[in-house]
Amino acid sequence: MGNGKQISLAVIRRLPRYYRYLQELLENNVGRISSMELSAKMNITASQIRQDLNNFGCFGQQGYGYNVELLFKEIGKILGVGRDYSLIVIGAGNIGQALAKYENFVKRGYNIVGIFDNNPAVIGKPVGRLVVEDIEKLDDFVGSRSVDIAVLAIPSKNVPSAMRKIIALGVKGIWNFSAVDLDAPPDIEIENVHLTDSLMTLSYKLSNETVN
Amino acid sequence: MGNGKQISLAVIRRLPRYYRYLQELLENNVGRISSMELSAKMNITASQIRQDLNNFGCFGQQGYGYNVELLFKEIGKILGVGRDYSLIVIGAGNIGQALAKYENFVKRGYNIVGIFDNNPAVIGKPVGRLVVEDIEKLDDFVGSRSVDIAVLAIPSKNVPSAMRKIIALGVKGIWNFSAVDLDAPPDIEIENVHLTDSLMTLSYKLSNETVN
Repeated sequence: MGNGKQISLAVIRRLPRYYRYLQELLENNVGRISSMELSAKMNITASQIRQDLNNFGCFGQQGYGYNVELLFKEIGKILGVGRDYSLIVIGAGNIGQALAKYENFVKRGYNIVGIFDNNPAVIGKPVGRLVVEDIEKLDDFVGSRSVDIAVLAIPSKNVPSAMRKIIALGVKGIWNFSAVDLDAPPDIEIENVHLTDSLMTLSYKLSNETVN
Repeated sequence: MGNGKQISLAVIRRLPRYYRYLQELLENNVGRISSMELSAKMNITASQIRQDLNNFGCFGQQGYGYNVELLFKEIGKILGVGRDYSLIVIGAGNIGQALAKYENFVKRGYNIVGIFDNNPAVIGKPVGRLVVEDIEKLDDFVGSRSVDIAVLAIPSKNVPSAMRKIIALGVKGIWNFSAVDLDAPPDIEIENVHLTDSLMTLSYKLSNETVN
């Protein structure tokens, strides 16, 4: 799977949704499903579904559809489910603490191994199984283990210095909750969760007509 | 400006980003900017920017570019900045509590006026300026005031019953943090923040090549 072939980000973004739907089907003992049925559930056209899944060599059988369990496992493999990832949280404010304690991540193999802040008032405080550490200790911490992803949950003004630290330490993935878009070298992968942008989009939709 | 014209969701989703960039420019006393310069900053093509902004009647002047302050105000107006919105949070787990305490929302006019849960262990507990209320009291609460948006931060299995309650009470906007896609009548507006999907996308990108 993958084997060098470049898949568009739009397709990738739909995979976790397929994965969730398939899991639900499995839990309800559904053994097979057609692209038409998936389409009705997911609000994606059947032809889009077939195209998406063909990308990964998952071909449904004419008149039979997809084997739910096989497809679920295949998409899980593509997404790297079952691999373990090591995450640190930078910023022990409300959002940072909530993410550090979020149990759903551990179930999927995302292990949060540290949480850091520069505020003496929170350093040393417990957050779930962790204790907030001084951001000054980040170098030693990361130096002694491998960290896949840094979760950024800090005020915008602190982002540039935190980015420099993280990148210098060799962390390759950044999950960004700060309200700025990041400037990073091309070998760094970034996913943004801009909460206020999402809320502004919702309130726009509430007061205006939009089309998909 | 709105006036009945339907704008695509892809354009709308970029508006909060424009808004953030323009705010930054304003704070740095930049008075005007060309679509080329905005393009370099935002990683969107200049022609896309001109097209996006033309939708709203914001025309840059040839050889001058856009007036930053005017454009900032115009986009703010389109997004409904300055209007006040009333939000309730359903679910006082880690994420629900963090959102209820998130100060950036209030600054933008998003006022969280209540937080609800069905768990006796958290009902009555303080969350910032609020106290967690029994979900059974939701009817009385919403009945006595206007609520624009319900933030859903509950386990998937509780989503259908919560959705029925919220919709029956006339709330028209749902900001969904639960790990399911919602089934709602067409007059209900939904924005999803699927945290685990986002994290899975990031880890896919870390182990595979993707294209935009």
